[in-house]
Order: sequence, then structure tokens, then C-alpha cells
Amino acid sequence: MKFCSSCGSAEITLTIPEGDNRPRYVCPLCQEIFYHNPKIVAGCIAEWQGKVLMCKREIEPRYGKWTLPAGFMENHETTLEAAARETQEEATAQVENLSLYTMYNLPHINQVYVMFRGDLVEGHASPGLESSEVALMDEQEIPWQELAFPIIKENLELYFQDRRSNHFTLHYGDMRRLPNMSYEIERY
Amino acid sequence: MKFCSSCGSAEITLTIPEGDNRPRYVCPLCQEIFYHNPKIVAGCIAEWQGKVLMCKREIEPRYGKWTLPAGFMENHETTLEAAARETQEEATAQVENLSLYTMYNLPHINQVYVMFRGDLVEGHASPGLESSEVALMDEQEIPWQELAFPIIKENLELYFQDRRSNHFTLHYGDMRRLPNMSYEIERY
Repeated sequence: MKFCSSCGSAEITLTIPEGDNRPRYVCPLCQEIFYHNPKIVAGCIAEWQGKVLMCKREIEPRYGKWTLPAGFMENHETTLEAAARETQEEATAQVENLSLYTMYNLPHINQVYVMFRGDLVEGHASPGLESSEVALMDEQEIPWQELAFPIIKENLELYFQDRRSNHFTLHYGDMRRLPNMSYEIERY
Repeated sequence: MKFCSSCGSAEITLTIPEGDNRPRYVCPLCQEIFYHNPKIVAGCIAEWQGKVLMCKREIEPRYGKWTLPAGFMENHETTLEAAARETQEEATAQVENLSLYTMYNLPHINQVYVMFRGDLVEGHASPGLESSEVALMDEQEIPWQELAFPIIKENLELYFQDRRSNHFTLHYGDMRRLPNMSYEIERY
């Protein structure tokens, strides 16, 4: 942030405002304070006849890797609506009977992942704008070495583990990237 | 948003970027796209000997009304850490054994409320910077007509309902403000 988006001044400074306890971008001319907060990524594990809907990314980052449909939640929608919209956009697929399944904090990138489980309507899916392929996969078919993000691997592992025990429960946890670029997972 | 915070230009326009499907603030000079996404509010139902920690607001909005400790999640923290920090800031209180309790979408104000249940350590609390009073209250003592926000009332109702049945479960739902200023609640 180099310029004030309210008054256009170039005097933006990083300082702790009065009554606050952490540095914010502040415009000393018009007094505007600019807050930056974590974003929600919402997505879906869409099921059809024991298989899960996967998408091959046709965008960066992780071009060519496989993922679950998920993306940034937009203003004026709910997390569930965001998950359904992302599934529509990335896999031209409709989902129903969504239920909240996992919520993971990724504090190193200021994201909270909120994933739902749901039924893929009529098993229909085809690549959306951001996907080169979509596929319905069982546990053996998942390309475990070709997944786009560690949080996707975590969600799929939890899902297949729950399905083996036939007991689905909500999972809450943290995933942090360590300095050595490995990931630490804490499941509560 | 009137000026570009990257290059300072006053040419900011609201337009649908290529490959996108909704209007964004875009700078035609430096091509920067500015996204605005929902924020997470994290908070806590802190319990001590059957009572719940409540705070009387000494800040706007809803100055003088009662609330549960809660506030905007910050970058580089988890939702659980945010809930514990807000409880510390608003009620000088420590909480432990936190578990995820409710998650509600408030799409009319682009917020997602994430509330935890936890134990108030040693029953200690005192007003923090944003509170004029704190109190431990049972169901009869809650000032139901003097609560700061409808989402706080919803959380307290769920909590006392679960406690009566001695069965706490995660609650997911939506709360929307209708044009007539009443609220519509959908519990999934």
C-alpha cells in the first residue's frame, strides 16, 4: 500500500493507531485507517456413487495439479453459497445437501478454509473456465502426488478416513508452513 | 475507493476484469485489481460455574449494550487465537479448552461469525479497554432486551438450549437482515 485510496496522498505510514495495539496502514492527511484481514476460501467435496469430484487446474498457482473446487468467498454470499458457486465455476457442476465438513486456519497465508460435503447432482460435471479436466475419483484414483495444495490433501485424507469408519464429523484444525517449507497440522 | 493504492491514480473504475464474472475496483493505469471479501468475527462463550462471561460495550456501535467478547480476526492468527485474544482484550480474561461452537454467515454485512465455547480460567475477568463492565450471568440474568447484536442473542439462545439438553453440538447457519429491519435466521 503506497497511496491512500481515499484521498490519494502518498504519505501512508505503518503505525499503531490510538486505541489499537497493532500496526495499520494509516493516512496522516485524511486519518483513514486501512485494515487487512484474513480471507475465507470455501469449497466442496462433491460425492457421486462413492467418488469425489476433482478438478485439474488450468490457472496458476499450481497449474496442472489436481484440487477440490474451492475459491475465495465473495461479499454478499454465505460460505455455503460460495462453495456451491466455486463448484459451478470450476466444474460446471451442481451440488445439493451441503453440510459443513472442515474448517482449517492457514495463518501463514491469512486464509481460513471452509469445506462442505455434498451430493453432485446427477453426477454431471465438465471443466469450467479454470479447469482443464474434471474427474470422479475413488481413494485409489486420487493423484496423491499431484495435488495442488496440502490443505486439499488434508481434506481428502479426512474424508476417506471418515468414510471407512462410516462416521462423518466436523474437523477443525490449523495448518502452518514451517521455515523448512514442510507443513505442521494441528487437529483439535 | 477513489484512488489506486498502488500507483495513486484517480482513474479507479468499477468494472468486470477479463476472466472474472463480477465488478471489481480496477486501476486502468497500473492494472491492479482490488478485491473486497467478507471478514471473520471470532468470539467466545466463556463459562465459569454455569455462568457465561458478558461484556458491556464502552464503544460504538451499540455503546452500553451487552455482548459476548468477539471481534475481527487479524492476519497471522487462527480463529481460535482470535477468539481468545478478543476475550483477553475486552474482559482481561483467559480462556482454555476452546472448541468450535457456531459458525454463522451474515451476508448483508459481509461477515462470518465464528464462536467458540471455553472455560474461563479461575473465573477471573475485569473490564478491558472496550468494556465498561463485565459480568458472569446465568440464563435468567442475561439482559435479553439489552443485547448488542442479534447474532449474540442467537448464540446465547443456542447455548442455553444445548445446556438444558446437556448436548452441545456445532451450529451452522445464516442470519440476514430483511428490508423491514427484522432478521431472518436459517439453521442448517
